[in-house]
Amino acid sequence: MTIAPDPVDLAARLIACKSVTPSDDGAMNIMADALKSAGFTVHLLTKGQAPDGPVTNLIAIRGEGHPHLAYAGHSDVVPAGQGWSSDPFTPTIKDGYLVGRGAVDMKSSVAAFIAAASRYTEHKGTLSLLITGDEEGPATFGTPAIIEWLNEQSIKPDYCLVGEPTSVERLGDTVKNGRRGSVNMWIEVEGIQGHVAYPDRARNPIPVLARIISDLESWVLDKGDQWFQPSNLEVTSIECDNKATNVIPALAKAQLNIRFNALHKGAELVDSLKKRVAAIDPKARVKAAISGEAFVTEEGVLTDTISAAIAKNTGITPSLSTSGGTSDARFLTKLCPVVEFGLVNATMHKVDEKASVEDIRQLSRIDEDIIKSFLG
Amino acid sequence: MTIAPDPVDLAARLIACKSVTPSDDGAMNIMADALKSAGFTVHLLTKGQAPDGPVTNLIAIRGEGHPHLAYAGHSDVVPAGQGWSSDPFTPTIKDGYLVGRGAVDMKSSVAAFIAAASRYTEHKGTLSLLITGDEEGPATFGTPAIIEWLNEQSIKPDYCLVGEPTSVERLGDTVKNGRRGSVNMWIEVEGIQGHVAYPDRARNPIPVLARIISDLESWVLDKGDQWFQPSNLEVTSIECDNKATNVIPALAKAQLNIRFNALHKGAELVDSLKKRVAAIDPKARVKAAISGEAFVTEEGVLTDTISAAIAKNTGITPSLSTSGGTSDARFLTKLCPVVEFGLVNATMHKVDEKASVEDIRQLSRIDEDIIKSFLG
Repeated sequence: MTIAPDPVDLAARLIACKSVTPSDDGAMNIMADALKSAGFTVHLLTKGQAPDGPVTNLIAIRGEGHPHLAYAGHSDVVPAGQGWSSDPFTPTIKDGYLVGRGAVDMKSSVAAFIAAASRYTEHKGTLSLLITGDEEGPATFGTPAIIEWLNEQSIKPDYCLVGEPTSVERLGDTVKNGRRGSVNMWIEVEGIQGHVAYPDRARNPIPVLARIISDLESWVLDKGDQWFQPSNLEVTSIECDNKATNVIPALAKAQLNIRFNALHKGAELVDSLKKRVAAIDPKARVKAAISGEAFVTEEGVLTDTISAAIAKNTGITPSLSTSGGTSDARFLTKLCPVVEFGLVNATMHKVDEKASVEDIRQLSRIDEDIIKSFLG
Repeated sequence: MTIAPDPVDLAARLIACKSVTPSDDGAMNIMADALKSAGFTVHLLTKGQAPDGPVTNLIAIRGEGHPHLAYAGHSDVVPAGQGWSSDPFTPTIKDGYLVGRGAVDMKSSVAAFIAAASRYTEHKGTLSLLITGDEEGPATFGTPAIIEWLNEQSIKPDYCLVGEPTSVERLGDTVKNGRRGSVNMWIEVEGIQGHVAYPDRARNPIPVLARIISDLESWVLDKGDQWFQPSNLEVTSIECDNKATNVIPALAKAQLNIRFNALHKGAELVDSLKKRVAAIDPKARVKAAISGEAFVTEEGVLTDTISAAIAKNTGITPSLSTSGGTSDARFLTKLCPVVEFGLVNATMHKVDEKASVEDIRQLSRIDEDIIKSFLG
C-alpha cells in the first residue's frame, strides 16, 4: 500500500477535470487509481448515449460480507456559468478556501472520503464507494445503474452515507435524514381559437387556466410533521403560443412542481390534482412525472453514529433535516438506511464555489471515524 | 373620355398584382390609369420605409367644391396562406365567382367604384377616391398620410363611403355605421426567482397574475347600447421565460385586448384597468396601446342615402351594425361622417377568397346610385 493521498490535493486534481454533467474528463480514473492503491477492487460502469450520456460510474469495494458501509457521491458538476474570479476548472487556494466548480458539490467530499478510506485500511466487513457521473443531470444512467449492478452481484450495503453538502453555516451543523419527494406536472387547457373581435365564435382557454392556478394555490396539501415542512406546490411556467394581439389562442399551458413530504405518495398527489383540474375543466389534459418519492430515515444507529463522529471532531451536535432539493439518496434509500452529510453548501452551483481547506481535512477525519465506528 | 371599365375585369387585373401589405406590385398604377381616363386628377403619395413601408397611397379627385363625396378603400391584401384550389394571385372565374386574394377584401369593391365613377362622369361638387396601400398592416403610412395630405390642401369631404366588405349573407344586408375601439395592453408581474425547493426565498409571480386575470374576467365593462354590443376584454397571451421545472420564475406576463363601444374612451379604460391591477399588485407594470377609439355615425343623410341605393338595387333594407374588427374608418371619421358598405365577407382573409360576379356588378350599380344621390 502507498501513502494515503492528501484530501485537498485529491480534490484539486478532481476539480481540474472538466466533468460538467454527463462528461467525465478523467475524474473517474483519478479516483480509480487512488482507490486501487488503497486496496479497493474498482468497477467502471459506462451506460447510455448522447445527449444524456454516455455516463461513467465507479463502484469500489474493499473487504467482504457484513457489516457493509457504503459511501455515495458524484464527480459530475453543473456548468460553470459566467463571472468567476478565477478559472472554474483551475483549482485555486485563496484565503484558506479551495475555489473551483465542484469544490463543495461534491468533489472535495469524495476526495475526503477516499483519503479517509486510504488511511483506515484494516477493517471488518465491506467498505464501498458508489460514485456516479450523472447526479446533476437526469440521473437515468447514474445511480440507478449502480443499484442495478449491485443487485446483480447480490451485494447489499447495511448503511449508506451520501456525501452531499448538507452543512449550512458551519461544517457539521446539519445532517439530512430524509428528502421530500418531487413531482412535475403539465396542464393544458384547450379552447377554440378565434378573432378577438368575435369572442362568441371562440373560447378563450386563458381565464380557465387562471382559475385552475388560483384553485391550486388555495390547496393546502398538509401541515408538515415531525420530520418535514409542509408540502408545497409552485406553478413554474405558463405559456401560450400566441404573439398576435388580435387572436384568442387555442391552447394555454402551465407547468408546476410539488415538493412533498412522506405523508404523500407522488401518484396520490397526481390523482388529487387531476380531480381538482377536472372540476374546473373536465377536458383539460394533465401529465405528470414523479422524480422521486419522499423518504425519511428514522433516528437510529446510522444517524447516531454519524452525529457522534461529527460531535467528536467539531464539538457540534448536528440537526437532522429533510429540507432542500432532491439528491440521489432518493434511489439509495431503496437499498438500505441513508443519511447525507457533507460540506457547507452556501456556494454550491454558484460562481466562485469554494470549500474551506480546513473543513475538507476535518470532513476527512469525520469520515474516518464513521468508517471506524461501523467497521472497526 | 374612354369607355368605362368592366368592374369584374378591373378587379381581376388588380388581383393579379401581388400586393401583399405593404407591397403594391403595380396595383396603384392600374387604378391611376383608369381614374385618369375617367377625368380624375391622381396623386400618388409614397411614405415610410422597411419593414412597414414604403407604402404607396392614391388620392384621385374630380370636380371641385361641395358637396364632396369620398370613397375610401385599400389595394393591399393579407398573405395568401396555404391550401388554395387555384393560384391566389391568378384571378379565376369559377361557378359564378371571382376567386383570388383580395376578391372580397377589397379589390373588387374598389374596381366596382372606379367603374361606377367612370360611367357617371357629369356631376356637381367633388368626387374623390382615397386608396391606401396599408390597411392590412400597421396603417402608419396609409390612411393617416392621406388625411394629412387632404388637410394640407384644405380639402374636406362632406361624406365618406368606405367600401369594406360589410355584407354577411347577401349583398346589401349589412351596413356599418360605426366600429368599436380597440386597445392592447400588456401586464408584467415581477416576482423573485428561486429554486422550487426553497419557496420561502422566492416570490412566485404566476399566482398573482392568475388572480389579476380572474379579476379582469369578472369586470363588466358595460351592457352595450342602441348601437353597440357590450365591450369585451380578452386575455390573448400569457408567458413566462422559464422552461426549467425546478425554478420559480422572476416574471409573468399577460397580453390582452379590449374591444370597446362608444360608451368608453381608450384612455379611461386603460386607467380603470391599471387601478384594478394595482389593487392586486401595486408593483405590476401595465403598458397600453390604443389602436382606435370607438365611433358611431348616427342615422341621417349618409345612412339613409346608402340604404336607399341598396334597397333600390337589391330589394333589401340593410341593417346598421357596429360589429366586427377595426377598419380605416376609425381614421376617416375625424374628417366627416363615415359609413361602410361592401361585398359579402364570408371568405375574407381565408383561402379561396371569392366574390360573386353578379354581386360585383350590382355593387357597382349601387355605387353609381350613391354618387348620383349625393352629386347628381
